[in-house]
Amino acid sequence: MIKAGIIGSTGYAGAELARLLLGHPEAEIVWYGSRSYVGQEYSSIYRNMFRMVDAQCLDDNMEELAKEADVIFTATPQGLCASLVNDGILSETKIVDLSADFRIKDVAVYEKWYGLEHKSPQYIPEAVYGLCEINREDVKKARLVANPGCYTTCSILTLYPLVKEGLVDVSSIIIDAKSGTSGAGRGAKVPNLFCEVNESMKAYGVASHRHTPEIEEQLGYACGQPVLLNFTPHLVPMNRGILATTYANLKTHVTWEEVKAAYDKYYENEFFVRVLPEGVYPETRWVEGSNFVDIGFKIDERTGRIIAIGALDNLVKGAAGQAVQNMNLLFGLKENMGLTQVPMFP
Amino acid sequence: MIKAGIIGSTGYAGAELARLLLGHPEAEIVWYGSRSYVGQEYSSIYRNMFRMVDAQCLDDNMEELAKEADVIFTATPQGLCASLVNDGILSETKIVDLSADFRIKDVAVYEKWYGLEHKSPQYIPEAVYGLCEINREDVKKARLVANPGCYTTCSILTLYPLVKEGLVDVSSIIIDAKSGTSGAGRGAKVPNLFCEVNESMKAYGVASHRHTPEIEEQLGYACGQPVLLNFTPHLVPMNRGILATTYANLKTHVTWEEVKAAYDKYYENEFFVRVLPEGVYPETRWVEGSNFVDIGFKIDERTGRIIAIGALDNLVKGAAGQAVQNMNLLFGLKENMGLTQVPMFP
Amino acid sequence: MIKAGIIGSTGYAGAELARLLLGHPEAEIVWYGSRSYVGQEYSSIYRNMFRMVDAQCLDDNMEELAKEADVIFTATPQGLCASLVNDGILSETKIVDLSADFRIKDVAVYEKWYGLEHKSPQYIPEAVYGLCEINREDVKKARLVANPGCYTTCSILTLYPLVKEGLVDVSSIIIDAKSGTSGAGRGAKVPNLFCEVNESMKAYGVASHRHTPEIEEQLGYACGQPVLLNFTPHLVPMNRGILATTYANLKTHVTWEEVKAAYDKYYENEFFVRVLPEGVYPETRWVEGSNFVDIGFKIDERTGRIIAIGALDNLVKGAAGQAVQNMNLLFGLKENMGLTQVPMFP
Amino acid sequence: MIKAGIIGSTGYAGAELARLLLGHPEAEIVWYGSRSYVGQEYSSIYRNMFRMVDAQCLDDNMEELAKEADVIFTATPQGLCASLVNDGILSETKIVDLSADFRIKDVAVYEKWYGLEHKSPQYIPEAVYGLCEINREDVKKARLVANPGCYTTCSILTLYPLVKEGLVDVSSIIIDAKSGTSGAGRGAKVPNLFCEVNESMKAYGVASHRHTPEIEEQLGYACGQPVLLNFTPHLVPMNRGILATTYANLKTHVTWEEVKAAYDKYYENEFFVRVLPEGVYPETRWVEGSNFVDIGFKIDERTGRIIAIGALDNLVKGAAGQAVQNMNLLFGLKENMGLTQVPMFP
Repeated sequence: MIKAGIIGSTGYAGAELARLLLGHPEAEIVWYGSRSYVGQEYSSIYRNMFRMVDAQCLDDNMEELAKEADVIFTATPQGLCASLVNDGILSETKIVDLSADFRIKDVAVYEKWYGLEHKSPQYIPEAVYGLCEINREDVKKARLVANPGCYTTCSILTLYPLVKEGLVDVSSIIIDAKSGTSGAGRGAKVPNLFCEVNESMKAYGVASHRHTPEIEEQLGYACGQPVLLNFTPHLVPMNRGILATTYANLKTHVTWEEVKAAYDKYYENEFFVRVLPEGVYPETRWVEGSNFVDIGFKIDERTGRIIAIGALDNLVKGAAGQAVQNMNLLFGLKENMGLTQVPMFP
Repeated sequence: MIKAGIIGSTGYAGAELARLLLGHPEAEIVWYGSRSYVGQEYSSIYRNMFRMVDAQCLDDNMEELAKEADVIFTATPQGLCASLVNDGILSETKIVDLSADFRIKDVAVYEKWYGLEHKSPQYIPEAVYGLCEINREDVKKARLVANPGCYTTCSILTLYPLVKEGLVDVSSIIIDAKSGTSGAGRGAKVPNLFCEVNESMKAYGVASHRHTPEIEEQLGYACGQPVLLNFTPHLVPMNRGILATTYANLKTHVTWEEVKAAYDKYYENEFFVRVLPEGVYPETRWVEGSNFVDIGFKIDERTGRIIAIGALDNLVKGAAGQAVQNMNLLFGLKENMGLTQVPMFP
Repeated sequence: MIKAGIIGSTGYAGAELARLLLGHPEAEIVWYGSRSYVGQEYSSIYRNMFRMVDAQCLDDNMEELAKEADVIFTATPQGLCASLVNDGILSETKIVDLSADFRIKDVAVYEKWYGLEHKSPQYIPEAVYGLCEINREDVKKARLVANPGCYTTCSILTLYPLVKEGLVDVSSIIIDAKSGTSGAGRGAKVPNLFCEVNESMKAYGVASHRHTPEIEEQLGYACGQPVLLNFTPHLVPMNRGILATTYANLKTHVTWEEVKAAYDKYYENEFFVRVLPEGVYPETRWVEGSNFVDIGFKIDERTGRIIAIGALDNLVKGAAGQAVQNMNLLFGLKENMGLTQVPMFP
Repeated sequence: MIKAGIIGSTGYAGAELARLLLGHPEAEIVWYGSRSYVGQEYSSIYRNMFRMVDAQCLDDNMEELAKEADVIFTATPQGLCASLVNDGILSETKIVDLSADFRIKDVAVYEKWYGLEHKSPQYIPEAVYGLCEINREDVKKARLVANPGCYTTCSILTLYPLVKEGLVDVSSIIIDAKSGTSGAGRGAKVPNLFCEVNESMKAYGVASHRHTPEIEEQLGYACGQPVLLNFTPHLVPMNRGILATTYANLKTHVTWEEVKAAYDKYYENEFFVRVLPEGVYPETRWVEGSNFVDIGFKIDERTGRIIAIGALDNLVKGAAGQAVQNMNLLFGLKENMGLTQVPMFP
């Protein structure tokens, strides 16, 4: 059994990690970390786990945790993992960091977009960007995995084959993304109150959201040149789900089948990526609670653009599910172990 | 592997059965029955199961299905199961009927409340009311299990120890229940449109809902006398979940601990029934997607009443989950096999 | 033009007052009071009023406000109005208090249920309980109006004719009420976050909610004897709306028409109370945004009970709308002035 | 008083017309037309209007209605208005058609995108496209007004100053729009059921939605050249509201202030168009129930694009409100008469 510790277990992503790990046949949770609820019964905070978890919240002592755990998940605010990690910890355990601290290779870009000084830039080079479908082999060998962001996972997987295969003009990419409200976290803020979110829709972080450079960097690796794009996130009155509607100019005339072949080249054998039939587009309800990413696309002959749409559950493939997928890779387990749930509908 | 067939697999309860059985280690689905979608890919109707189910919808031919299946689930409108079942079928397979056809022992009561002539009254005596926590031993020996209704499961389990132990005046019972909209089914009806349900709440079936006699009959068995009560269901703008707030006059002065002891007498070893600590009350979010029933209660010294509240997921413990629990009993499997998911929140 | 000031204008009830008063032909708002947002543009907090309100938030200085305003609405937490009101203020202006400070005549009851020391018990005797349909004549002569609670308005108006006419056993009354989330206010609290409320339902304040003694006191006046009842509020994932499902034992056999006559006796000429036809029950969507209370009822011959159901918009008839109705009475205006909007659906 | 008739009064747009006209000081409704509910009480279908409307639904006899009404609103499916209108009718009354029949000047484009033969192409030339802010003077003189679509009103008003002033490359326009579910109408269809829409988000009509040519035609008039663009609508789990996020390449370097000046040139004196301060973006909740369009924009220096975002209530400014605005223009009334409601929040 893999002993897993969760730093930040009382946020939504941390609780989703708990949910998934409790159902994982080869893992057990040895540490429910929390800054706000130390000493409280975990199941008194997440009563869905009443009688399923008999543990109290512990503090964020990563040094001590490293001695107990085979893997540590940090589901914490930006900056925390970078400030805690050190050689000792990395020699004793593996880390899957769900924050952005090790996602971006260019530390200046990180510091600019996040407005933070990076406390452990020395670990950035070895950190592996844990988008399993793309960096699988590197993840297997890593000590430190930077678990991708929710919007970024959806956006990159949707666009990757188009960019990698040179089908689209990368200077024309626009990503219009929509997210359920769990992505905003469990902090007590007026804008996230039920009455503020319900029956409304808004854009936020317009031309300034922090997932932008992460998407640009990864797509840049795919096409071998810098990528600048527009990314606009929106808040939707639902709990879970991200839908990314992406637009790009096609470089040449291609058919739906030709583009499908490009997607199949990368995803045909991927368990978690489902490319939909022609004329069918993703809906977040069809992936809820699962680690799937659904992708559909349309070629608009009139404008010469492709509209490619991706959907995932932001707490699963966009956070905790992908983190478990990375754990599976780190420990040589079947990649989809503990992640084969049927999406829950309705 | 138990071969299972689902008649009515394209309704919400049928699809939930599919979701649960696909995750069950000892069962496989051999028949996706449907009246409306014969010949269509099941996963084109429920795209959450895209690439997880490779089967077309078949018709409702129960005779043929009985030859292939070890168990048949009928998730169909009232009257259908009663009209199809016969000796041949019952000699070849077991049936778990999710409709009301075999729930009520008094056929006159059934015919009055449902406005239907019962087509197979001869099977009513042998049918076992599949509320596992109460009728476990009988279920194990049954051929035909009448899977309880969603409201009834929640109401009965909430009230059972109080009634069985004689703590309350059964003539004073009032059940005010609230349900998510999946309980209304997948039929295309104006009152169930998003804009009609969202941002509203209403009572329906006031003093006339069909689950009333089912609750009364079962509670009557518990206390050994006829029970008449008020049951008022309400429609809530959410997908899943039932909350039953029940009221009854206490016969004598009792403490919270004494009542808790009564609950523990029946539920202490029940995996699926979670009686909450004092001062904590059920919320439907804590059971969503799971087979749990959460129960909490309060004694009101001022009025001499007890308020006992239960919550479950109407599609799981209120329908498909309990049906799988019954299947497990029928085939001698661990009762919670395939049903140990952590409730999904948020 | 009546000059109106709002203390607590940045809460939901205060903002609803602003919305209604901005559409009122005989009132203007001279003071947008707020504790948290002093000095900020009101329309930057409530952007629905962008370009409709050109005013900054002022502090809660009731002394100064009293000099400017003909009427002050206090939409503030319990205790504030009682701590600010004094003879000088009451000699200069009229007060409609939307908090509970002056609703309950028995100060001991207030202090027990609210856990607060009452700072101005000397004004309780003269305060008029502003349930206009019942206390209309007294309101007209008042200086200080205690605007009723949201649950209480709905519960009392639903039960009043039954209790007043002696049709029901008052010791048997049970009120099971359900409210949209705006009733919980705009405070930044985790339990009111979108993801915590959405897709769930729960009871709260079981046998302990503060609206209980308010309902009991008023119904006690109606029947001339003390009333003890059960009141259970529930939180529903919708913005607005209260539905109160009430139960009581009928004293004698009565027909639907006889009960309807009792309702008509009190409400036939009431603009805001709509008693529905037989077989029709209230739904909160039909009153949203309006000052209406819809009432429907059913006699259950089987159990000898009546189920009477009421619905209103908690921010309008349950708070700001009723406050404006009281203002209209205080100043001799047409009672429904500014309150004749068609409920907004969907 | 203007006598108004509504054909299609039982759909959501028709009911919203009723709501608005009932509050209009200079109009009265003389005809509640309906195909499905002839002979039924209007207020039994829309119980929000119980005791406010005392009328039965009448059939769609436009000939007869033309004799009684000063203005006819046709809130009907595509094709109906074109099949009913004739010279006699147009000589007796004015028509505001909320369908698409007379919106598109090029009949071939209409017939291609709508898949319908146009039954009255002879009236297309005289029909005025009723986007009041742009075609105000023409509307005043019209007999037949083509009331714009919901998505189109939002999209065009958001982009108009940018296109008209030549600030953007019109070949680069992308419109990613999101709509509440009332836009899908009141038809009983499975995809519009609560459980299908709630907790999900999807794109639909990808590169094929009928509002595309309407937007293109109007923006083409603005810039004097043909426009081809991408328009992708999405369905959001909320009742009302459209948010259009638009993207376009800026032709030259401009500042926020310069673009604001362009917006002000067209909208400074428009009551219903609210251009927001820098850094503030529209949210649908701030316009709900009102005829406002809120617009905000951002210049992305990195990509050389402008992101301009518009929000409106699809049933008001996107349908019934704009129709009333057109009526006001047709009859020489104040343009915002009956349309000055404060948006309702929450």
